[in-house]
Amino acid sequence: MKVSSKAQRCALSPMRKYHPYAVEAKAKGKKIYHLNIGQPDIATPPAYFEALRNFEQPVLAYAPSPGMPEMIDAVIKYYDGIGIEYDANDILITTGGSEALQMLMLSILDEGSEIIIPEPFYPNYSTFVNSAGGVIRPLTTTPEEGYNYANREKIETLINEKTRAIMFTNPGNPTGFVLSRDEMRMIADIAKEHNLYVIGDEVYREFVYGGEPLASIGEFDDIKENAVIIDSVSKRFSACGARIGTIITKNKELQQQLLKFCQARLSVATLDQVASAALYSVDADYFDAVRDEYRLRRDTCYKKLLEIPGVVCAEPKGAFYIMAKLPVDDADKFQLWLLTDFDDNGETVMFAPGGGFYATKGKGNNEIRIAYVLKQADLERAMDLLALGIKKYNETHK
Amino acid sequence: MKVSSKAQRCALSPMRKYHPYAVEAKAKGKKIYHLNIGQPDIATPPAYFEALRNFEQPVLAYAPSPGMPEMIDAVIKYYDGIGIEYDANDILITTGGSEALQMLMLSILDEGSEIIIPEPFYPNYSTFVNSAGGVIRPLTTTPEEGYNYANREKIETLINEKTRAIMFTNPGNPTGFVLSRDEMRMIADIAKEHNLYVIGDEVYREFVYGGEPLASIGEFDDIKENAVIIDSVSKRFSACGARIGTIITKNKELQQQLLKFCQARLSVATLDQVASAALYSVDADYFDAVRDEYRLRRDTCYKKLLEIPGVVCAEPKGAFYIMAKLPVDDADKFQLWLLTDFDDNGETVMFAPGGGFYATKGKGNNEIRIAYVLKQADLERAMDLLALGIKKYNETHK
Repeated sequence: MKVSSKAQRCALSPMRKYHPYAVEAKAKGKKIYHLNIGQPDIATPPAYFEALRNFEQPVLAYAPSPGMPEMIDAVIKYYDGIGIEYDANDILITTGGSEALQMLMLSILDEGSEIIIPEPFYPNYSTFVNSAGGVIRPLTTTPEEGYNYANREKIETLINEKTRAIMFTNPGNPTGFVLSRDEMRMIADIAKEHNLYVIGDEVYREFVYGGEPLASIGEFDDIKENAVIIDSVSKRFSACGARIGTIITKNKELQQQLLKFCQARLSVATLDQVASAALYSVDADYFDAVRDEYRLRRDTCYKKLLEIPGVVCAEPKGAFYIMAKLPVDDADKFQLWLLTDFDDNGETVMFAPGGGFYATKGKGNNEIRIAYVLKQADLERAMDLLALGIKKYNETHK
Repeated sequence: MKVSSKAQRCALSPMRKYHPYAVEAKAKGKKIYHLNIGQPDIATPPAYFEALRNFEQPVLAYAPSPGMPEMIDAVIKYYDGIGIEYDANDILITTGGSEALQMLMLSILDEGSEIIIPEPFYPNYSTFVNSAGGVIRPLTTTPEEGYNYANREKIETLINEKTRAIMFTNPGNPTGFVLSRDEMRMIADIAKEHNLYVIGDEVYREFVYGGEPLASIGEFDDIKENAVIIDSVSKRFSACGARIGTIITKNKELQQQLLKFCQARLSVATLDQVASAALYSVDADYFDAVRDEYRLRRDTCYKKLLEIPGVVCAEPKGAFYIMAKLPVDDADKFQLWLLTDFDDNGETVMFAPGGGFYATKGKGNNEIRIAYVLKQADLERAMDLLALGIKKYNETHK
C-alpha cells in the first residue's frame, strides 16, 4: 500500500518532536519548564462552562454546516465592536483556526500553486499548504531585522503567475512581529494590484503591547474581495480545547467553495459553539487584564534574553512568542542535550527549535521560539535555566 | 483571484440542496416531514451531559493530538467487547468520522489516484476524495439487485495501477445493504491480493436487523496492514453534534502520515472527548433498545414503500436508510414539486434525491434515499405523504 506523496512532504510538528524525550526525562524525575507550546495558563472565562451546564436539549444534534446562528452572531458583534461590518454570509464557523486554514488552502490552491508566507512562520501552515498540493514561497526575514517582512520589493520579487495568496500571522507566531497600519495597507495594495488573496491569521489580535488599536486586514474596503481573515477563540479566551474558529471573507465565489467543505464535514461541534458564543459576552476589561499579564511576561522574557551574551532578538510587539537567535551551534542539538544531559537542581527547560519554522533549508538552525505562557516566577526560572544551559552547553561543546 | 479546480469539482450536499426551498415552504406555514437527513431523534445518553457538568479544570486546554487517553481507552475497550484487539498506537481520535475520512484521503491519495467505492455511496466521500486529488471509481449497483456490491469480478475489473483502496460504508449509507462475513472476507482477499487498503466505514455497526453478530473489516488478521476502520459516536450514541470520530489501523506507515495531520490541526475538542468517552459506559441493552426501535421503523418504511405501485426496493438489512427507485421521471423535480406545489392538509415530505449518491452521471435520477429517523407515527404520515405525492405528481406530470 502506498501513502501519498503530499503526506510524505509534510512533517511532524517541531513543537512536539521532543515530546518522547521529555516523557523520558520526566520519568527520571526531571522537572521541565515548557516554553515550547502556545498553551496559555490563563483561566477560560466561566461563561463557557455555564453555557454547557445550561444546555438542555435531549438530543445532541448536528449544527448547521456554516455554523450555529448564535456563534455567527457573536462573531458579527465582536467585529462590529472593532469597527468592521460583516453579515452572516461572510462568516463560516470552523473546527478551530486549523480547519479554517485547511479548508481555505483546499479552496484556493491547485497542484503547484504558490502562496507567499514570511518566514519564520507557524509550521502547521506547511501541512495545510502541502496537503492542498501547493507550495510555500517563503519571504525570508532575520532576527537582526526583527523579522519584519513588510518590504514591498521583497514581496513583489516572489510573485509570479502561480501565486495565489499572501498569508501572514499578525500579531506574529513565532516572531511576535506586528504590522503597522501603513505596512498592512502596503501589503493590501500589493494583493490588489496583483489580484491575490491576502490572508490575515489574526488569532492573536488582542495581544498587542504598544498601546496601538487593534488592526485587521478586514478594515480595507477596497480589498474586500481579496481579504480573508482566520480567527479563533483559542487564544483570545484561553479556550484552545474548544476548537472553535472562523473564516471570514466577503468574496462570494470563495465562500461557495468553502461551504462545500463545511457541508462535507457536516458540522462543527454543537456544544462548543454554544459555549464559545457565550465567551464573547465577557467584559472588555477581560482583554485588558490578559494583555497586561502577557505584557509583563513579554518584558521578563525579553529582558532575560538580552542578558544572555550573544543572543540576537528584537522586542516582540504582540502575540505571546519571542523568536531569538542563540549563541549555540544547533538549537535542535541543544534542546536534545537540555533534556538528556542537563539539569539544574533536577530542572530543565523546553522551547521550540527554530528550523521547523522556516521553509528554506538550513535557516533558523540556531534560533528558538519561546512561548511565554507561564506564570511570572516559573517564567523567570525557565529563562534562567535557558541562560545556564547555553553556558554549560557551550563549555562542553567546543 | 482563483479558486482551486479541486474545490470546483466538489458539489454541495444533495441532502441539503433543497434546504432553501424548505425554508420558504415553512415560512408559508407548510409542515415538512424530514426524511432527508440522518439526524436521529433518539435521546443522547445522559452520561454525555453528566461528564460535561463534572469537568472542573479552569483552563480548557488542547488535548493531545492523537486523542485523549480516556477516549482512546474507551475505543480499545469497545473493540475488545466485539472481539478485536487494538492498542493505543492503532487509534487516532478525530473530529467526527468526517475528519477521519478527510485525513485518510489526504494520506493515501495522490493526484489521479483511484479509490473503488460501490455506488450509490455517501456523497461526502466525493469531496474528501476530490479534495485529495483522487478519483472515485464507482462500482455501480442497482435497486433491482438490492445494491449488493460483493461481486469479485466486478470489483477486480475496476482495479488498475492507480488503484489505492476499496472503501465501503457497512452497514450501508444510503442503501442499508450489509455485507455477510463471507462477502467481507472476499473483499478482504481482493485487497490482500492487489495490495490495496480496504476501508470500512462502520459508523452504523450496531444497526443490523437480521440478528447477525456485528461484523468488522478489523476482524481479519491476515489483512491487518490493509484494513482501516472509520468509526464515530455520532450514530452509535445519537451524538452527532459531538463530532467525535476515530480512525483505526495497524498499518504503522499510514499511522505516521495520519499523525502529521492530527498534529497540524493540534487537537480534537477536549470536552467532547471527555464526554464521548463516558458514552461508552452505557449498558449493552442501550444498543438493543435502539436497534429494536430502528428495526420497527425499517419495517414500517419498507412495508409502506412496497405498497406504492412501481417502487423497486429490497429490504435493507442495516443502518437507518432505505434507497428505492420511484415511479417518477426525476426525483429532483419531484422533490422540488413536493416543496413548492404539493401539500396534504398543509403537510409535505423531504427525502434525498438519488442522483447525488452516484458518481456515474445520469444514474439514480429516479431513486431516493429515505432516512427513517422519525417517530413511528410521524414516519407513517411521512410515508403516506410520499405515496400521495407520487400519485398526484404523476397525474400532473404526464
